[in-house]
Amino acid sequence: MSTSGLNMSRRIRRTPFTNKVEECGVTGFSVVNHMLLPKAFKKSVEEDYWHLRSNVQLWDVSVQRQVQIEGPDAENLVQRMTPRSIKGMKVKKCFYIPIIDENAGMINDPVLLKLSENKFWLSIADSDVLLWAKGLAIGSNLKVKIEEPNVYPLAIQGPKAEDLMALIFGEEVRSIKFFNFGLFNFEGTEQVIARAGYSKQGGFEIYFKGYELGEKLWDTIWKAGKEFDISPGCPNLIERIEGGLMSYGNDFTRENNPLECNLEMYCAEDNQHDFIGKAALNKIRKEGIKQKIRGIVFDGDPCPTCTKPFPVFSKNKKKIGQITSGIYSPRLKKNVGLSMILKDHWNIGNEVIVETPDNKLRAGTISSLPFQE
Amino acid sequence: MSTSGLNMSRRIRRTPFTNKVEECGVTGFSVVNHMLLPKAFKKSVEEDYWHLRSNVQLWDVSVQRQVQIEGPDAENLVQRMTPRSIKGMKVKKCFYIPIIDENAGMINDPVLLKLSENKFWLSIADSDVLLWAKGLAIGSNLKVKIEEPNVYPLAIQGPKAEDLMALIFGEEVRSIKFFNFGLFNFEGTEQVIARAGYSKQGGFEIYFKGYELGEKLWDTIWKAGKEFDISPGCPNLIERIEGGLMSYGNDFTRENNPLECNLEMYCAEDNQHDFIGKAALNKIRKEGIKQKIRGIVFDGDPCPTCTKPFPVFSKNKKKIGQITSGIYSPRLKKNVGLSMILKDHWNIGNEVIVETPDNKLRAGTISSLPFQE
Repeated sequence: MSTSGLNMSRRIRRTPFTNKVEECGVTGFSVVNHMLLPKAFKKSVEEDYWHLRSNVQLWDVSVQRQVQIEGPDAENLVQRMTPRSIKGMKVKKCFYIPIIDENAGMINDPVLLKLSENKFWLSIADSDVLLWAKGLAIGSNLKVKIEEPNVYPLAIQGPKAEDLMALIFGEEVRSIKFFNFGLFNFEGTEQVIARAGYSKQGGFEIYFKGYELGEKLWDTIWKAGKEFDISPGCPNLIERIEGGLMSYGNDFTRENNPLECNLEMYCAEDNQHDFIGKAALNKIRKEGIKQKIRGIVFDGDPCPTCTKPFPVFSKNKKKIGQITSGIYSPRLKKNVGLSMILKDHWNIGNEVIVETPDNKLRAGTISSLPFQE
Repeated sequence: MSTSGLNMSRRIRRTPFTNKVEECGVTGFSVVNHMLLPKAFKKSVEEDYWHLRSNVQLWDVSVQRQVQIEGPDAENLVQRMTPRSIKGMKVKKCFYIPIIDENAGMINDPVLLKLSENKFWLSIADSDVLLWAKGLAIGSNLKVKIEEPNVYPLAIQGPKAEDLMALIFGEEVRSIKFFNFGLFNFEGTEQVIARAGYSKQGGFEIYFKGYELGEKLWDTIWKAGKEFDISPGCPNLIERIEGGLMSYGNDFTRENNPLECNLEMYCAEDNQHDFIGKAALNKIRKEGIKQKIRGIVFDGDPCPTCTKPFPVFSKNKKKIGQITSGIYSPRLKKNVGLSMILKDHWNIGNEVIVETPDNKLRAGTISSLPFQE
């Protein structure tokens, strides 16, 4: 069973755009950060995939809640929360940062936005980073104010995103570099627009601040997008897996450290700064990790929906890992999956066996990420 | 729209009982603490309501995750987290406790279980209390270990719950007092069983520890329950609202303080202990609260599902609050709702107007909680 009914309540918060995605015929949601994430429209995941690769889509990703950390100790607190050095980070920059606990377990993998010298946003995946940050700040008596502002990201993704955004916000949006943001006017309000997004097709995220103007923003983009064949969308599972984009809670959890998640480039090697989990992370680095996220390409007809991890075995039937996100790629004409795989078996090209919930054993091969044609 | 599709993924965790609720024909879920909560079976909410009031039901409430706090500073940390004094709390006791932040905003309203002098479980509503507790502990250098153990509560609720539980766990379960727990054997494992649960119909919660034995536990209860007309179930919205049982995220959020939520009895008046938010709470108490949770009985045909709060107006059309959980009570033959209402309008018997999403204005009356016949 890949979908069931979702019983709605106030606790599962609507967004400024929920009425609009309902008008667009949304058929399925997920729940992230106590909020609705549209996950399916009338088209199939495959149709949406091809559309995303050639046109432009509008995604309600309001679930990427912002944890706003502001005050004289803001930089200090943010730096304590991540093994990535933020020294020298400039205003209007975005940094992808792992957030880890005292055991170096992953708590989240947000995008950090530096709004000013003393003000940051953490654009989070599915865990209450606000409580983590507030707990640390109160426990350590830091001078910061931590809030969830009324910011609801809207993503414009796909190869035609830039032309569309230029029509609405002016040619200046074209000059925003990847993982940078600028400030743009919409109806007299100042909005943060970053070149970023949870796809590999290019695009922007509007960190829409407000609520009431949300539908007007949606309508404005929608109307201007008609000439680019705009479609409602959402992070596309085929595109995400092909692109090797990991999902917190799916592909890694608090049980995993950032080195297992291929995030060593975001874990400062030098002794630039102190952070929570540093001793644990150094120990893990010294001893070497026991498993790591890899791609797997595997055979057979399109695999069932991966709602429970698919066990992965070596050719001599030892369990060596699991696929945590898996789907059939219509472009590669193979099933592809993201998997956590034990050390002796993670070499690229290694042959494995994948068990899918339709009780099929499928031949597979370890692959680098992102998947190549 | 009250239900839509729920797109499944590993991030929305299954429980040891999910296979079983699927076998029982679950038709809808909610998501709480990144885990599936069954919310609808084949019967209507009303049929389930009558069944719960006269028989016994088996609920998969694994979403009530446990935050285990253990170590020499465990009691100290738990006490810092709540305005309720836990001084003198005995082992095998359950306490309902508000957890508040530095502004006295509600972070959660768990049931606290004292397992030993240095070991507690917080059985939580929908927010990552584990991150809050860990943040506080790390920030304050407390000697505690904080984990989410493999504990998956299963509730047995309804007037026949005690007879059923006695058949399985022996006559001794009858002697467990309300909000106490005992240790009982199941297949050689020691299980915590409390007289508690999210209904007013009486019953027990088995804090099932393990995973593999889960289906056996479910089957054992199911088989023994046949003579009591056992049914799969879930917290019933009619029964919950009638009983005045609040839901975190629905009826109150971090925007609300415990006094607004009628939790003054759990907020120590004396200066027994220090806790986070004490100064803010004392200030609020001194100045007086501006709004409070009340019941509202309101007219008309059964109201639509309350997925967005229903605005509440005074008779002279001023907005005075909102209904956050509302439903038609087939027993009271009226609509009933839990609402946050401004001070000048919260008197019992006060007449109000409720606007429901079917664009109807309905006459209503402020009521005490729980609702009386």
